[in-house]
Amino acid sequence: MRIAVDAMGGDFAPVEIVKGAVEAAEKDGIDIVLVGDRDQIKAELAKHPAAAVEIMHASEIVQMDEHPANAIRRKPDSSIVVAAGMVVSGEADAIVSAGNTGAAMAVATLKLGRIPGIARPAIASFLPTNKGKAVLLDGGANVDCSVDNLLQFAVMGREYAERVLKLNNPRIGLLSIGEEPSKGNELTKAAHAQLAQSDLHFVGNIDGKDVFRGAADVIICDGFAGNLVLKIAEAIAEFLQSNLKEEINKNPVYKLGVLILSPALKRAKNRLDYAEYGGAPLLGVNGVCIISHGRSDARAIRNAIKAAASAVENNVVKFISTTVQQDEFAILNRDPSAK
Amino acid sequence: MRIAVDAMGGDFAPVEIVKGAVEAAEKDGIDIVLVGDRDQIKAELAKHPAAAVEIMHASEIVQMDEHPANAIRRKPDSSIVVAAGMVVSGEADAIVSAGNTGAAMAVATLKLGRIPGIARPAIASFLPTNKGKAVLLDGGANVDCSVDNLLQFAVMGREYAERVLKLNNPRIGLLSIGEEPSKGNELTKAAHAQLAQSDLHFVGNIDGKDVFRGAADVIICDGFAGNLVLKIAEAIAEFLQSNLKEEINKNPVYKLGVLILSPALKRAKNRLDYAEYGGAPLLGVNGVCIISHGRSDARAIRNAIKAAASAVENNVVKFISTTVQQDEFAILNRDPSAK
Repeated sequence: MRIAVDAMGGDFAPVEIVKGAVEAAEKDGIDIVLVGDRDQIKAELAKHPAAAVEIMHASEIVQMDEHPANAIRRKPDSSIVVAAGMVVSGEADAIVSAGNTGAAMAVATLKLGRIPGIARPAIASFLPTNKGKAVLLDGGANVDCSVDNLLQFAVMGREYAERVLKLNNPRIGLLSIGEEPSKGNELTKAAHAQLAQSDLHFVGNIDGKDVFRGAADVIICDGFAGNLVLKIAEAIAEFLQSNLKEEINKNPVYKLGVLILSPALKRAKNRLDYAEYGGAPLLGVNGVCIISHGRSDARAIRNAIKAAASAVENNVVKFISTTVQQDEFAILNRDPSAK
Repeated sequence: MRIAVDAMGGDFAPVEIVKGAVEAAEKDGIDIVLVGDRDQIKAELAKHPAAAVEIMHASEIVQMDEHPANAIRRKPDSSIVVAAGMVVSGEADAIVSAGNTGAAMAVATLKLGRIPGIARPAIASFLPTNKGKAVLLDGGANVDCSVDNLLQFAVMGREYAERVLKLNNPRIGLLSIGEEPSKGNELTKAAHAQLAQSDLHFVGNIDGKDVFRGAADVIICDGFAGNLVLKIAEAIAEFLQSNLKEEINKNPVYKLGVLILSPALKRAKNRLDYAEYGGAPLLGVNGVCIISHGRSDARAIRNAIKAAASAVENNVVKFISTTVQQDEFAILNRDPSAK
């Protein structure tokens, strides 16, 4: 097994990407090929002389703010396109990228193709909960979704939770406003009716206030709502932190309190840390692709590489593919070509 | 001016409602009529013998979990219905309720009617920001919205921010995922195009991560997204707090840190406190109706009563009504009867 890591993608590329890849190779024994500008990668690898990491040269870089579709067309030798090509040709088993999210999704969908029966791939993002973590999908790949899209997300999330996270009979919840089936918008009400009839372990609507309480292992929503949840969670944590800093600066005696409490404050905050999870798998494409946060540091990249390896090892693509085509999930698969 | 306060609505009714009303009467000099069970209200008022607060008897109560439309039909003598009736008959100028939100909205819309040109009333909720506060609407009254609904929300939010919050030329933002006009779902992209053409001071999309950064004074979205934002913000703050408590309990020395930091922690947390704002005006109905959080304490109720008085004093209903019918806002008013 070999993981193709986009060395040029992300706010701290290539420094942190190379560092994270080296750590994954050395500490986790994962075979890695760094894809990107050979000279830049070599210069970074020189800091880690003992590292056994391969390089695949790619002369171009898709910038963070480039239009995804245009960038791919214009830059066939960009690191993300070359990395995906390696998975297609069998030279690698998975892609990890902290670069332009839209470009990574577009490349993965275009090059790897979709799993038959899945109309739209979805980003499976992790949320911390009082009981551990939950997988939320879609985290932002599809802003406008149909009921069928949501049902397919549910099946993909279930397979991921069961096969990779090793949860037994994972609980599927539907993000909504209000717990009753009658609460929500037209999309969630229609999806609720279908999910309730399915063979999934559906636990009903998950109200916004319960998202972090661990009432479901897999939380289903359209990409607009999902992305909003992820960003609001990050934004409010930052807001509280900046408020606290401001209050602390008002009185020197607080500095002593911070000194004493600092480890506890740090650990409480770390439970929200995206780097803990490393990246979000793009589920529904015919291959493993892990999309990392643009601000990924070495630890996040190492965790993303481990997540990629685990998805490959546990055959998550094969399980999704088999499940969506099984008779018992016919309800989820009425028209695979439908949007 | 007289404010009709639903004494029976809310988790801590009638105790905290009566207490908050008495405070508003005594400290803010506002004329108040408490609507609800006469005996229960009298018993509470006995704790405040000097208070000059009137009572309007109502024999029924709409429970928090009752179906709004059914409850109103079946309970014509409920406190919320009687309070609304007092505004219709001119015996009161505004309603304040911390009871069943759906019922309060339905009663206000049914009894007071809509402002001509406004298809759907919206809840204007307050969000704290690094620069003060922002008004978000819709906070949950309309889960499925059209572009016209959003444009009308923008006009109502602008009038409220300008007339009541006294902001000069308030900045209107559109909640979306991504800042560029091309980012978002079908609804936000279409609304962006219309808002950009309007005479409003439109500052473009507000990404989830920027909601608390004060980039807009008024944030427009459908009620599903808006309610999600409010609930996720509340949920993540609770989650962080419970994480911190858990960490603190791990080591007795942290207790000392908490003792020192406690005022700063409390003040940082208070910036998120709904009681600070008291309640959310339901804009678009032909009268003033403030909907308070179910968990409102006396302070929240007092602030809600002050908000109601301020909305009446500043003629917000009249200004919304005039503005939506002005020629320059013709774009917002193409078909007032349209959903």
